[in-house]
Amino acid sequence: MRLTAGLAISLDAMGGDKAPDMVVHGADIARQRFPQVRFQFYGDTDRLKPIFKGLPALAAVSDIHHADTVITMDDKPGQALRAGRGSSMRLAIDAVQRGESNAVVSAGNTGALMAMAKFVLKTMPGIDRPAIASFFPTMRSESVMLDLGANVVCDASNLVQFAVMGNVFARTVLGVREPSTALLNVGSEEMKGHDAVKEAAAILRLVNLPGRFHGFVEGDDIAKGTVDVIVTDGFTGNVALKSIEGTVKLYGYFLRQSFGSSLMAKFGYLLARPALNALRARVDPRRYNGAIFMGLNGICVKSHGGTDAFGFANAIGVAVDMVQNGAIENMKRDFDQMITTPGAAPGSAAL
Amino acid sequence: MRLTAGLAISLDAMGGDKAPDMVVHGADIARQRFPQVRFQFYGDTDRLKPIFKGLPALAAVSDIHHADTVITMDDKPGQALRAGRGSSMRLAIDAVQRGESNAVVSAGNTGALMAMAKFVLKTMPGIDRPAIASFFPTMRSESVMLDLGANVVCDASNLVQFAVMGNVFARTVLGVREPSTALLNVGSEEMKGHDAVKEAAAILRLVNLPGRFHGFVEGDDIAKGTVDVIVTDGFTGNVALKSIEGTVKLYGYFLRQSFGSSLMAKFGYLLARPALNALRARVDPRRYNGAIFMGLNGICVKSHGGTDAFGFANAIGVAVDMVQNGAIENMKRDFDQMITTPGAAPGSAAL
Repeated sequence: MRLTAGLAISLDAMGGDKAPDMVVHGADIARQRFPQVRFQFYGDTDRLKPIFKGLPALAAVSDIHHADTVITMDDKPGQALRAGRGSSMRLAIDAVQRGESNAVVSAGNTGALMAMAKFVLKTMPGIDRPAIASFFPTMRSESVMLDLGANVVCDASNLVQFAVMGNVFARTVLGVREPSTALLNVGSEEMKGHDAVKEAAAILRLVNLPGRFHGFVEGDDIAKGTVDVIVTDGFTGNVALKSIEGTVKLYGYFLRQSFGSSLMAKFGYLLARPALNALRARVDPRRYNGAIFMGLNGICVKSHGGTDAFGFANAIGVAVDMVQNGAIENMKRDFDQMITTPGAAPGSAAL
Repeated sequence: MRLTAGLAISLDAMGGDKAPDMVVHGADIARQRFPQVRFQFYGDTDRLKPIFKGLPALAAVSDIHHADTVITMDDKPGQALRAGRGSSMRLAIDAVQRGESNAVVSAGNTGALMAMAKFVLKTMPGIDRPAIASFFPTMRSESVMLDLGANVVCDASNLVQFAVMGNVFARTVLGVREPSTALLNVGSEEMKGHDAVKEAAAILRLVNLPGRFHGFVEGDDIAKGTVDVIVTDGFTGNVALKSIEGTVKLYGYFLRQSFGSSLMAKFGYLLARPALNALRARVDPRRYNGAIFMGLNGICVKSHGGTDAFGFANAIGVAVDMVQNGAIENMKRDFDQMITTPGAAPGSAAL
């Protein structure tokens, strides 16, 4: 586990529905998984210190930095940028920019976090717009999809850049050596879809990413795990992700109703309970908590706002994976190669 | 059941993976549910007649019309339009146009069916583009979503027209008296989304549909059943629909794996089997088979190409519901009212 000495993660202690308790307890779970990590907490010290009282092991690997203000879920991104300079979220991001920590994790306001992270960390050379990426379970293993909502309108070059970012994500976080990548579309034939996806496909057929460009996939290919990386605009990606989350909840609800529908079914449930708990763990959204803002000069992970300590620990885990596997350096190298030798395989060293 | 005397449904007997057997047997199931319906089969009589041998009751309420050619799944829409004049699909549509049947059902090539139906039946006055609509189970009951893939790019006025069509669908097929309608978006706040959804929302706030305009919903609201009618462009709608279908399959797969994972779990499955079969029936895509091409001067229902007789019978059922509840007349009235009295409530007579 101790791959990187002196790894530090800054945490927006005040972001999320159950903050700051959830954040501190989440860090305590992450501490046991990642003993090499030091935690930089940014938040209201008066509220944070009492929580640390019962967690001496966490306190030993943590620093608490006071922040006067908190970005709320209702703050508009522009407002957060202008007025949020002393906020817990902003100070946590600033620490990454100054090199005092390797990544930031926040369960706060997504729009504000993206605006601040973009302003402070800046987008990487070669990337016009950052994207939100996350991974989820499939029939085959796990896949990554992006953009999940940062950009509601995307052109072909945005989509191509997302493909490169997703490729790096698959290699660094999912550990897939040669990821397969596809564009989400309404059909798999070349003539399908709107101009942006068709143009992006034409470019991606020329620019060899590490792995294989699969062409187009459809919505049902997400769960099938047809490819490792699914690229789409932020509008479609956000709708697809939430449609999937809603369906998982609906199925779980139907399943509970079925088991409650007769005495026999209830007995059946009791016998099958350990197996069903394993299923529940498998589709547990907390396991897949931690969306990454890809394309910035720094690692910024957004935790679901409503998550608990277990979920938040997983978001920290995603940040740690990104840092330990040199996600930023990999992406910079891939883009450099795309720019300096157009048509050549970015990251071809890995092929 | 005998609401309408002399109701006729024309069937593309050659469309679908398992056609023509599936189509004929599907009609035989539908015959038992809808004794008032007469079936007009269009297809290869040499192949059709032997199938009818064992189905005298169906033969008694059916006419078989010979068609020389078949539109294949690989035919491009333009090609089907030009060369498919004698095809089973085209003749089945023509019958609706001539008033010889009240609706057409086909499990064939979607793009070809849409192109032909649009060419033959024409779009309704007030509607620029037809849309594909379908309904599916939710936590509350059932909802309709459109467009599911007919139009990959949509402007605000397309979306507004889809909202009116969806509203009519909810009233006629789902039997909801005052449907709630919403636009699919990446957030519920007014400022969210791209221009088309924002403009469409502004218009829909003024044009009172029967029922209530809810504003924006997100992907997870589809399964929640937050509203009766979900309106979106064909790209997003197609991806959302297929993402949901894929997730249902993934969950079923995980569930089977769980029940097979231990002896106790297998016993549990045996006890809970009747309840689980009820669940399976509840999420069975065949139950929700039958997508409607809304906005044409005639009822055209697209069955899933891979469905079986049970699924095809349900697609026929959707067509029968549309006919019996006067879907076309309702929609024409609503659009007339929107055009003649802008700002007034279309279909307000129903309020």
